[in-house]
Amino acid sequence: MKKVPVGILGATGMVGQRFIQLLDDHPWFEVAAVAASDRSAGRRYSDACRWLLPGAVPSKVAGLPVRPLDPALDCELVFSALPSDVAGPVEESFADAGYAVCSNAASHRLDPDVPLLIPEVNWQHTALIGVQRRRRKGFIATGPNCSTAALTLALRPLHDAFGVRRVFVVTMQALSGAGYPGTASLDILGNVIPHIGGEEAKVEQEPLKLLGTLTGDGVAGASIILSAQCNRVPVRDGHTECVSIELETKTEQRDVVAALQNYEAPPGVIDLPSTPRRPVVVRTEPDRPQPARDRDAGCGMSVSVGRVRPCPLLDHKFVLLGHNTVRGAAGGSIHNAELLVKQRWLG
Amino acid sequence: MKKVPVGILGATGMVGQRFIQLLDDHPWFEVAAVAASDRSAGRRYSDACRWLLPGAVPSKVAGLPVRPLDPALDCELVFSALPSDVAGPVEESFADAGYAVCSNAASHRLDPDVPLLIPEVNWQHTALIGVQRRRRKGFIATGPNCSTAALTLALRPLHDAFGVRRVFVVTMQALSGAGYPGTASLDILGNVIPHIGGEEAKVEQEPLKLLGTLTGDGVAGASIILSAQCNRVPVRDGHTECVSIELETKTEQRDVVAALQNYEAPPGVIDLPSTPRRPVVVRTEPDRPQPARDRDAGCGMSVSVGRVRPCPLLDHKFVLLGHNTVRGAAGGSIHNAELLVKQRWLG
Amino acid sequence: MKKVPVGILGATGMVGQRFIQLLDDHPWFEVAAVAASDRSAGRRYSDACRWLLPGAVPSKVAGLPVRPLDPALDCELVFSALPSDVAGPVEESFADAGYAVCSNAASHRLDPDVPLLIPEVNWQHTALIGVQRRRRKGFIATGPNCSTAALTLALRPLHDAFGVRRVFVVTMQALSGAGYPGTASLDILGNVIPHIGGEEAKVEQEPLKLLGTLTGDGVAGASIILSAQCNRVPVRDGHTECVSIELETKTEQRDVVAALQNYEAPPGVIDLPSTPRRPVVVRTEPDRPQPARDRDAGCGMSVSVGRVRPCPLLDHKFVLLGHNTVRGAAGGSIHNAELLVKQRWLG
Amino acid sequence: MKKVPVGILGATGMVGQRFIQLLDDHPWFEVAAVAASDRSAGRRYSDACRWLLPGAVPSKVAGLPVRPLDPALDCELVFSALPSDVAGPVEESFADAGYAVCSNAASHRLDPDVPLLIPEVNWQHTALIGVQRRRRKGFIATGPNCSTAALTLALRPLHDAFGVRRVFVVTMQALSGAGYPGTASLDILGNVIPHIGGEEAKVEQEPLKLLGTLTGDGVAGASIILSAQCNRVPVRDGHTECVSIELETKTEQRDVVAALQNYEAPPGVIDLPSTPRRPVVVRTEPDRPQPARDRDAGCGMSVSVGRVRPCPLLDHKFVLLGHNTVRGAAGGSIHNAELLVKQRWLG
Repeated sequence: MKKVPVGILGATGMVGQRFIQLLDDHPWFEVAAVAASDRSAGRRYSDACRWLLPGAVPSKVAGLPVRPLDPALDCELVFSALPSDVAGPVEESFADAGYAVCSNAASHRLDPDVPLLIPEVNWQHTALIGVQRRRRKGFIATGPNCSTAALTLALRPLHDAFGVRRVFVVTMQALSGAGYPGTASLDILGNVIPHIGGEEAKVEQEPLKLLGTLTGDGVAGASIILSAQCNRVPVRDGHTECVSIELETKTEQRDVVAALQNYEAPPGVIDLPSTPRRPVVVRTEPDRPQPARDRDAGCGMSVSVGRVRPCPLLDHKFVLLGHNTVRGAAGGSIHNAELLVKQRWLG
Repeated sequence: MKKVPVGILGATGMVGQRFIQLLDDHPWFEVAAVAASDRSAGRRYSDACRWLLPGAVPSKVAGLPVRPLDPALDCELVFSALPSDVAGPVEESFADAGYAVCSNAASHRLDPDVPLLIPEVNWQHTALIGVQRRRRKGFIATGPNCSTAALTLALRPLHDAFGVRRVFVVTMQALSGAGYPGTASLDILGNVIPHIGGEEAKVEQEPLKLLGTLTGDGVAGASIILSAQCNRVPVRDGHTECVSIELETKTEQRDVVAALQNYEAPPGVIDLPSTPRRPVVVRTEPDRPQPARDRDAGCGMSVSVGRVRPCPLLDHKFVLLGHNTVRGAAGGSIHNAELLVKQRWLG
Repeated sequence: MKKVPVGILGATGMVGQRFIQLLDDHPWFEVAAVAASDRSAGRRYSDACRWLLPGAVPSKVAGLPVRPLDPALDCELVFSALPSDVAGPVEESFADAGYAVCSNAASHRLDPDVPLLIPEVNWQHTALIGVQRRRRKGFIATGPNCSTAALTLALRPLHDAFGVRRVFVVTMQALSGAGYPGTASLDILGNVIPHIGGEEAKVEQEPLKLLGTLTGDGVAGASIILSAQCNRVPVRDGHTECVSIELETKTEQRDVVAALQNYEAPPGVIDLPSTPRRPVVVRTEPDRPQPARDRDAGCGMSVSVGRVRPCPLLDHKFVLLGHNTVRGAAGGSIHNAELLVKQRWLG
Repeated sequence: MKKVPVGILGATGMVGQRFIQLLDDHPWFEVAAVAASDRSAGRRYSDACRWLLPGAVPSKVAGLPVRPLDPALDCELVFSALPSDVAGPVEESFADAGYAVCSNAASHRLDPDVPLLIPEVNWQHTALIGVQRRRRKGFIATGPNCSTAALTLALRPLHDAFGVRRVFVVTMQALSGAGYPGTASLDILGNVIPHIGGEEAKVEQEPLKLLGTLTGDGVAGASIILSAQCNRVPVRDGHTECVSIELETKTEQRDVVAALQNYEAPPGVIDLPSTPRRPVVVRTEPDRPQPARDRDAGCGMSVSVGRVRPCPLLDHKFVLLGHNTVRGAAGGSIHNAELLVKQRWLG
């Protein structure tokens, strides 16, 4: 199979770099163009970018010229790693010009005809693309917020089996989620910051769309109430979340564990390159999952769940962990693009 | 006033050191004896102890000989900084021998005739000492777990004003709470450990006794349901807690804030040396309290509360922070001893 | 004594904040004016400044209006906490207008008629002020770079007693030295950055002027060769330095230790408010000094030295530690201003 | 080729785990036996071991029974990851019984007939095995201390080309070098410990044997003088070293860089499985190498060197970085074993 040439919008930032790293040797995609703000445009990628990931800039990308954020890239599919304040209009201009835009930004997640996607969770929602194309040549497809991605992946099998009614979640989020330079070291070394701008609203809203039901022209949100408290902690990668849930069907703890453990990606998703063997890995040690030890489960695409136990207030509580820049950002968008290719929304 | 000579049981450990630091220049107490396990006994304190706090060992204590943990110390009041696996029988032997034991350990906190005290919260519970003395010459008085101390101080004014029904709490706890050597650096650098042995049960039970009502011979626990999830984070001192509460009387957010802000120590407590001017400090910045910036509020005896806001599931949510080895351990026990002196339970 | 009103240039930055904290309740000085870049000018100090130190903005300063960096402040003495790229011309404009400028910036440290001062080390160098005043109404007096300050304080007694010929120094510097926001957390969490722009040159040059000899119109640099390697480490405050020295007079280790231990501030310096009882504290434990434990020695004005031992290449090696934002920045400049008042250079 | 069955002594510790991780899928070796102290003996490896590396215990090893440290393992080659206080006699008992022992411990490094090996540096020194076998059936071959390994790899090409005379080195060492539990988090979070027991002597002595010359029955040490200062810093893996060197032949900086860059493993070493393509990677950025970014160069077997520049005291200074538990411990011993197999010392 000839690889699909792709472009990266916002290629020089933290998430952009993760896209480039994850797309190196991707079986279906090949980075053909990198674009960034005017400040970087015109320079070689490896000169314009302060590479923050271990190792060197992948050689195929190092020499690419950084292009401006105009819909004139030589590819059909673009990944958007743009910061939210810029992403809105730029993504629209690309979609209007006929590009398929797989976005990691928040700007269009809740637009009624834009799918908000996690392949294992709601692969059917790509149907919104058909709706969206009534008004533009190309389309935008989005992935959720990093904390939402991990949380919703664990909620999906529980919602299917028992119905999720209410969810408490307190996050302890990694520094890479704040981009670069992001959080100042003097603010976070030996400290916790109990606030991440806009994050709690995203975690309380996005799962409803992800777990919602396709109607004719949109998605009817799931009837779940969530309450989120979000914190930044001195961890490099990996968001840890303490979750408590109430279920519609009262259920034994072992059935909750079984539902999580037996969760499999549906047909049409299971053989995508980025789909992990297990979307949810259940750990049985008393003190896991931990970001430093478990974030790379399933190459960063699996969510780890541990400490499933009764909750005195709701029904069950547990701890979950997801890799915020893989499953929760670049890896998730690439996964979405794989789904789009597989379902033949491109071309 | 002549200072009351006091002894420290478990003087060489992390909490024992904090006792010695906080008692240096205390207006009412003077360290007259230090005791520790057999391994240390017989040596000078400054030789037996690996001092972990900034600065040097207070000079008055440095030269004291470390005594064994036998009830033969030349003082009437002892502070127990013993680890819980040792504290139980040692504290009993001292209390049986006539000592007043102010303990920081968990062993006797839930004994029916042993008061579990936070002076601002339940100073009347010292009445249990009279009950306890029916069976022994001296007595044990205890302070709560470090996470409980901070949480309950914030719940007290809310419970008084509006009735607290249900509480969710997720803690992010500092390393000093695990003692020394405690948590291995390889386990916690750039990591979160979502488990602290026994901690969640303590946080779910102890507030009920603290907020409970004196009956003839004991305390009837408060009718509150708590659910706790406890985590260790790479912070030196200061426990951060994300709290969500349901109240009996539905209340505006500004009234919750007012109740916290206007909370004052009751008469008989307000003029104790360790009582802070404000038991609860309400912060209005969007990203506070933070352990590195707020743990020393009120010399470590105030609890800081911030981000009071509506909770989609219960009624209100907020973040609180307390100094775990001051208010939550040594400082709390000293505060309790001050209350006992003031109420004339000694001598 | 009526307090001397002082102004702070660059009052909103990291070092500016340290000035304000250290001047709160200073016996001789009183902050009368705060000035900063145009962006902040006009606002109340507590609004313009993101306060980074523990506790709150000192109340006397919180309400002061932030003034622009023009020489029109109502005081005679100003402290400059300006970043080096701005400090040069601003400090000159103040000095030309008649102000006494005590600067922490690098811009004028090596100007021939500007004293570079550490009171205990070279109090006589204030004589350069007389030279400088031939060309301007007021004057600039500077303090050294933070790593230099600690190093030179330890070299002074050794140079006096034995003659220092050659010095190797490798620094491990704290984050606060980089200002705010300074080092990005993603760059330094669990990492070392083996480079601090311009730092090595400063550490290799400034001690020569500090330890140099007054000539008619200037200072003849000391004949010492230094080689410095400077690193950033994930420590909040306190610079650690591994030092190896060659002496002119071959000397026993105990004499080196004695020279450090017996080092006393000279008359005219010893009774300044900020002079610590001991400029150098010698520690004898095998693993000290450490930044987290020793940075506050002498209220941050003492340098701690430990591990004095033979060097197979030069003569002796040791580890030293100084508080970079106290002795190495704001505290050092205040100390210098005290010296100037004492020597009657003001007014 | 049939894989060589190997045993791991001290398999449950930090270094033992790294051996097991690195030997998973090794092309030449296969873990056939794991042995540890009596406390662990008899249990399944995955039960006896608190696995500290990311991911799970390799499945081939998880089920192996932990054997006692007796020379009765079913293999010919054993790797010793024993702590130094135990390693001495245990390694001797294995070597006496006929095993080839590849040790990472310090106990026998300086024994005259025991080779101290880094394959790229002194592959000829395996000749000592012939000498050693005069007195025992099997033999011990050792690898150097972790800081020494990285340092000596960079010194080898410089010594060959220009003659190294004097070396200053200050290390900033990672936590994994202290084993598990090792350094307490309260000792190192936001701190530096300027002392590592015994380390400085090792760094000052071991390079002399490694760079020494084979004589009839031993090795004549190289005539170099080293001075080392060793520090522990809050970094997980990767030792950073600031080095300054004096050369016999005065040399341009570009020639130093060229010698490092062009350094190649010799024939007989270059095709060993663990030999990296480049033993030394020269970086040209102003702020590299850094442990978090460069420790995995060459799969942890390359040493990264950066900031080559003139030294005002000696000739040149630079920063180097090596992975302490890969090149500096388990990886180095495996590399040594590969050399022994290649040179047919086994069987």
